[in-house]
Amino acid sequence: MNPNIPQTDRTRVVIVGAGFGGLRLARMLADRREFQVVLVNRTNYHEFQPLYYQVATAGLEANSILFPLRAVFGDCENVHIRVTNVTGVRTADKEIDTELGVITYDYLVMATGADTNFFNQQNIIEKALPMKSVSEAIALRNRILQNFEDALSVETVDERDGLMDVVVVGGGPTGVELCGTLAEMKRTVLPSDYPELDFNMMQIYLIQSGDVLLEPMSENAHKKSEEYLRELGVEVRLNTRVKDFDGKTVFMSDGTTLRSNNLIWAAGVRATPLAGLPKEVVGRGGRVTVNRYNQIEGFTDVFAIGDVAMMVEGDKWPEGHPQVAQPAIQQGKLLGKNLIRLLKKQPMQEYTYSDLGSMATIGRGLAVVDLPFLKFSGVLAWLTWLMVHLMAIVGVKNRLLILINWTWNYLSYDNSLRLIIRQKLPVGNFSNMQERVADTLVVNKQS
Amino acid sequence: MNPNIPQTDRTRVVIVGAGFGGLRLARMLADRREFQVVLVNRTNYHEFQPLYYQVATAGLEANSILFPLRAVFGDCENVHIRVTNVTGVRTADKEIDTELGVITYDYLVMATGADTNFFNQQNIIEKALPMKSVSEAIALRNRILQNFEDALSVETVDERDGLMDVVVVGGGPTGVELCGTLAEMKRTVLPSDYPELDFNMMQIYLIQSGDVLLEPMSENAHKKSEEYLRELGVEVRLNTRVKDFDGKTVFMSDGTTLRSNNLIWAAGVRATPLAGLPKEVVGRGGRVTVNRYNQIEGFTDVFAIGDVAMMVEGDKWPEGHPQVAQPAIQQGKLLGKNLIRLLKKQPMQEYTYSDLGSMATIGRGLAVVDLPFLKFSGVLAWLTWLMVHLMAIVGVKNRLLILINWTWNYLSYDNSLRLIIRQKLPVGNFSNMQERVADTLVVNKQS
Repeated sequence: MNPNIPQTDRTRVVIVGAGFGGLRLARMLADRREFQVVLVNRTNYHEFQPLYYQVATAGLEANSILFPLRAVFGDCENVHIRVTNVTGVRTADKEIDTELGVITYDYLVMATGADTNFFNQQNIIEKALPMKSVSEAIALRNRILQNFEDALSVETVDERDGLMDVVVVGGGPTGVELCGTLAEMKRTVLPSDYPELDFNMMQIYLIQSGDVLLEPMSENAHKKSEEYLRELGVEVRLNTRVKDFDGKTVFMSDGTTLRSNNLIWAAGVRATPLAGLPKEVVGRGGRVTVNRYNQIEGFTDVFAIGDVAMMVEGDKWPEGHPQVAQPAIQQGKLLGKNLIRLLKKQPMQEYTYSDLGSMATIGRGLAVVDLPFLKFSGVLAWLTWLMVHLMAIVGVKNRLLILINWTWNYLSYDNSLRLIIRQKLPVGNFSNMQERVADTLVVNKQS
Repeated sequence: MNPNIPQTDRTRVVIVGAGFGGLRLARMLADRREFQVVLVNRTNYHEFQPLYYQVATAGLEANSILFPLRAVFGDCENVHIRVTNVTGVRTADKEIDTELGVITYDYLVMATGADTNFFNQQNIIEKALPMKSVSEAIALRNRILQNFEDALSVETVDERDGLMDVVVVGGGPTGVELCGTLAEMKRTVLPSDYPELDFNMMQIYLIQSGDVLLEPMSENAHKKSEEYLRELGVEVRLNTRVKDFDGKTVFMSDGTTLRSNNLIWAAGVRATPLAGLPKEVVGRGGRVTVNRYNQIEGFTDVFAIGDVAMMVEGDKWPEGHPQVAQPAIQQGKLLGKNLIRLLKKQPMQEYTYSDLGSMATIGRGLAVVDLPFLKFSGVLAWLTWLMVHLMAIVGVKNRLLILINWTWNYLSYDNSLRLIIRQKLPVGNFSNMQERVADTLVVNKQS
């Protein structure tokens, strides 16, 4: 294997990661003939992370929140996309190592984002369910739906209880939105799908270590989100941590236990910088220290943007910017401009975070929105949330599909994507079925 | 585990399989209080098989051709759905064995359909790609797209050739439709996605053992389908069989070879009846001999419908009906009526196949349609094909989503679902990534 990037006399910018930051940067440089852009990503698509929870709860199909990278850059002859894993960087040689081989760079941009932080709890790493990629969201959907199928067939009430109860850890937007949606499914579509089950048995717990939900948001958001969730029947436990999980019982910091097979882990993220950087630049939560130009400390040719970057912006953000979409998008955009300036030997511009606000949805007509000068909640907040997310999605067709799905789900109270899609396994039961190891959805059989 | 089907004094009809036949039968009986219907299926959804090829070629998302069974029967208190594999039948005890345990029946209906027939060729079983389930169609999509990614990085022209070439075996509707779509992708979306590859290198072969394509259709369909495919650049080889395949080279019956890593097997199907039937009732192609009431030979309480059933209808269908949707749907509907008649001690009605015609699409504006009194091809045939398939899909929302996708793809020449969705594997490369075995899309981690 060989990445086969054509050699040109253009300045080569290698971008690792096609999330919000990396994609925006690549788009900024896509029509600039002075650059050769190499976009390296683990998958062949961009993922719209804020809507994972809707995939996990059968509200949206996975493809409507994904966008193929090659469809974005089809006409840009200076953009080279390589779908592979990056195994490290060697800054002295100006090279990165990938599973396809070595790629050299003039400028390297780390836009590698963050992944679930399990805080090194081994049992939780092994048994809890994360939701930090679309494939994890699909796996979560399969698991939740399969639980109810299994609940029909178990012999004891205890087993049924363990299957039907869900414990969500983490009171950020992911945990709040997931709990709200599960609570609505419990009241609408699930009892209709499973008339043989008693849904009074289904408990949804939200465990939050701090004393409020949606901690970085306003007091209004703290109060309203908790109120909405309690109204929907979610049991919110504040100032509590999960200590351990054996696959059947969740052990809490206050000594209590919860009987559930399902521990969904949305308790935090940890940045995933490339291996090979000097130790001293990797700080808290795995984030890489950068200056106001997103240059990694000690480098002029290696940058980091988005969740993986830790930029201290004066007194305003002493612990770095929030690890959400906006800083990533803004830094990607500015870095595009700065690289153009660099090439023209003009001075670069410092990044300043423009906080456009934040929001979370809890259920039908229930959301909280914090804008810089206005905090509100309820139906208007919910409509704002819908509009903002719809417009942020990449691709006109995706927008259209999501609009139809949302409208449909709203009117019908019916998440119609309740599909457990798995590999077709060889089934020894049918008399004539050939035994075969099918190509799976996951593992590529290619020889 | 225990299937936990409630005991009632109603007549219990156990239907195995929720394809076209089983689903139709279950719907016929769903509101009949005199019956208790147990619908056993391997997945929790019905699959619309005629559009697998569009999932495989990134034209439709999988979920738009699937329909959750529980959404169909949500309000029917006499229908019990169980998602499990059936391992056999014991007719003397009136019981079937499932992975959840034993289910007893008053009437059993085998609607188990058919699967790919590899004709016991071991290398082909192991290395060829079938397309007889939605998960196989998704795996095929992943494989085809991954091939072009890999083609960018291989070192030799020979390897690139092997990745880009596709050999499709079987000149039925599946093979014809797949080749037509691949040929269009070769001309439109693929060169735009992969400007670094030379698509003159990509060859698409269609191998057919007989001397015409779409053999059961009219002479017009034979001629036109071949003509359309050749115009699109597909190399059609008639009167040829595939003898062997080592994963890189396809060995043909005429002694020639084709260099391709991709052998797509659509050469035939084999019925998949339940194990445990008397040997003498299982005939050619695994099909079970039934009388005109779909009763399996020698039984009054065990029925077979659809692809798995072999009904000789006088001189008209001496080798049974074609293994397509229409006979399955018609038999499901009639069997529903006949079971009601049986209960009322009225005589059952004999099944007569009403051939509504058949059709296949080859590409944009290219299709062939055989109606009982009219054969036609071209744009009108293509529009007919689109309308018929759109109306046949279960679910208003699915119809809407498919209509949007088709319109979009037609106008934009862009199959926007070019996503390689796989499990997120633990990547040792990012310095802070925890090693973990994630829940896969396929295997349920549940303990």
